[in-house]
Amino acid sequence: MQLTFIGTGDCAGVPVYNCTCPICAESRTNPQKRRSSCCAYLTTETTRLLIDAGAPDLGDRFSRNAIDLILLSHYHIDHVYGLFPMRWGSSCKPIPVYGPDYPKGCADLLQHPGIFDFSHTLQPFISQQLTDIEITPLPLNHSKPSLGYALKYGNSRLAWLSDTSGLPGDTINFLKKWLPSTMVLDCTFPPLEHPHPNHNDIDSAIALHHAIGPESTYLTHISHDLDFWFSTSGFLLPQGLHLASDGLNMRV
Amino acid sequence: MQLTFIGTGDCAGVPVYNCTCPICAESRTNPQKRRSSCCAYLTTETTRLLIDAGAPDLGDRFSRNAIDLILLSHYHIDHVYGLFPMRWGSSCKPIPVYGPDYPKGCADLLQHPGIFDFSHTLQPFISQQLTDIEITPLPLNHSKPSLGYALKYGNSRLAWLSDTSGLPGDTINFLKKWLPSTMVLDCTFPPLEHPHPNHNDIDSAIALHHAIGPESTYLTHISHDLDFWFSTSGFLLPQGLHLASDGLNMRV
Ligand SMILES: [Mn+2]
Ligand SMILES: [Mn+2]
Ligand SMILES: [Mn+2]
Ligand SMILES: [Mn+2]
Ligand SMILES: [Zn+2]
Ligand SMILES: [Zn+2]
Repeated sequence: MQLTFIGTGDCAGVPVYNCTCPICAESRTNPQKRRSSCCAYLTTETTRLLIDAGAPDLGDRFSRNAIDLILLSHYHIDHVYGLFPMRWGSSCKPIPVYGPDYPKGCADLLQHPGIFDFSHTLQPFISQQLTDIEITPLPLNHSKPSLGYALKYGNSRLAWLSDTSGLPGDTINFLKKWLPSTMVLDCTFPPLEHPHPNHNDIDSAIALHHAIGPESTYLTHISHDLDFWFSTSGFLLPQGLHLASDGLNMRV
Repeated sequence: MQLTFIGTGDCAGVPVYNCTCPICAESRTNPQKRRSSCCAYLTTETTRLLIDAGAPDLGDRFSRNAIDLILLSHYHIDHVYGLFPMRWGSSCKPIPVYGPDYPKGCADLLQHPGIFDFSHTLQPFISQQLTDIEITPLPLNHSKPSLGYALKYGNSRLAWLSDTSGLPGDTINFLKKWLPSTMVLDCTFPPLEHPHPNHNDIDSAIALHHAIGPESTYLTHISHDLDFWFSTSGFLLPQGLHLASDGLNMRV
């Protein structure tokens, strides 16, 4: 499968509004250092899907036939932000959206879905074959019902795990048996004294990488604080761990 | 006062996603034909304010000290869209937001206001002096509690009226006495057989212009349908009426 990161930032993104730290300052002159909100594009020979939709310009990036379906982790606005203008698309075959069963949705998105079909609610650990990808939803630890996804295509297995703080026990057990080749994991904060209730810091992300043991883990949902910590701590990520960045593209 | 239109489109904007009409097609190659969602910037010698915040990139456009306050017409997402990423600004003096008393807000905006102070709720016809501008909220006809604004600075009087379908009687009576020099008015649709419940078509907008009689009226909240109708009907706007466009800047 081909994975392209479109947005790798947390809800504030990089640059953070009104922030003059070196990370945000540099991102205002060097667009490659910007981080839009959570969004990625995953393709196989026959299927093209968005994972989350936090970037505001998805309508400009993707024509209708470039998207077969959308996979949502949860309904926080930084993960559905780009759907709002797109929903008013014209003469559009409906776009199926798969995600947690959360009738409240976000703002009036589910009341006025427009071109989106949000009826495809998923249940934890109930796998579905979506065209040529087998998708298993995985419960996460977050303030809203959130689902991670185990995505299997041939022998490549991608685990998409954001937004979360640590992982529920049965999700870890599933992943230890399922053995993802690549993991994409929420890593919002530099080392924290106390775990954050909704997001991983770098220590908990590294611990999850070692506990589950994929070949590689890409860290996403990154705050300017984490970028700043990396730029000043001199810390080197252990082998197999990488900081994702907007535009990063790879085979998984 | 100096007025700059930042977004003059309806909730779908121009281009509309997946639309291949000549208007949307041209806007994809000629950025001046694009219409972002409802937003304008109004300045006097000492005050700088945003009217609505529909554009998604306000954090890039305005530094903290370029905004003294924000005036919201209502909490539909196409009018508050740009506030979501901005709210997480860092080390920021709170930005006062004035608008209708609508505790539901939009998504989790009022639950997690960040740098915004939404406590400044306004009541219809109760004027307030905000620094050097006298602001009188005016009830509109819309699906959510919506306020238009009569903005007086010296002898220039700007009436901002969107989103609305027609105007309530007492708002029209107020404006006939107040005599705006400039009006900005919701004009979403080309001529309709039946009035739309929430937005004006070109006929109702022109009728309101003649009924209230400002020197000039700028039409905003424009759909690709209205742009298309103007490009094919050969219709000429009566003297004093103008189609707003993103980036248009003028003294009012
Ligand atoms: Mn998030
Ligand atoms: Mn979240
Ligand atoms: Mn609107
Ligand atoms: Mn509205
Ligand atoms: Zn920063
Ligand atoms: Zn169009």
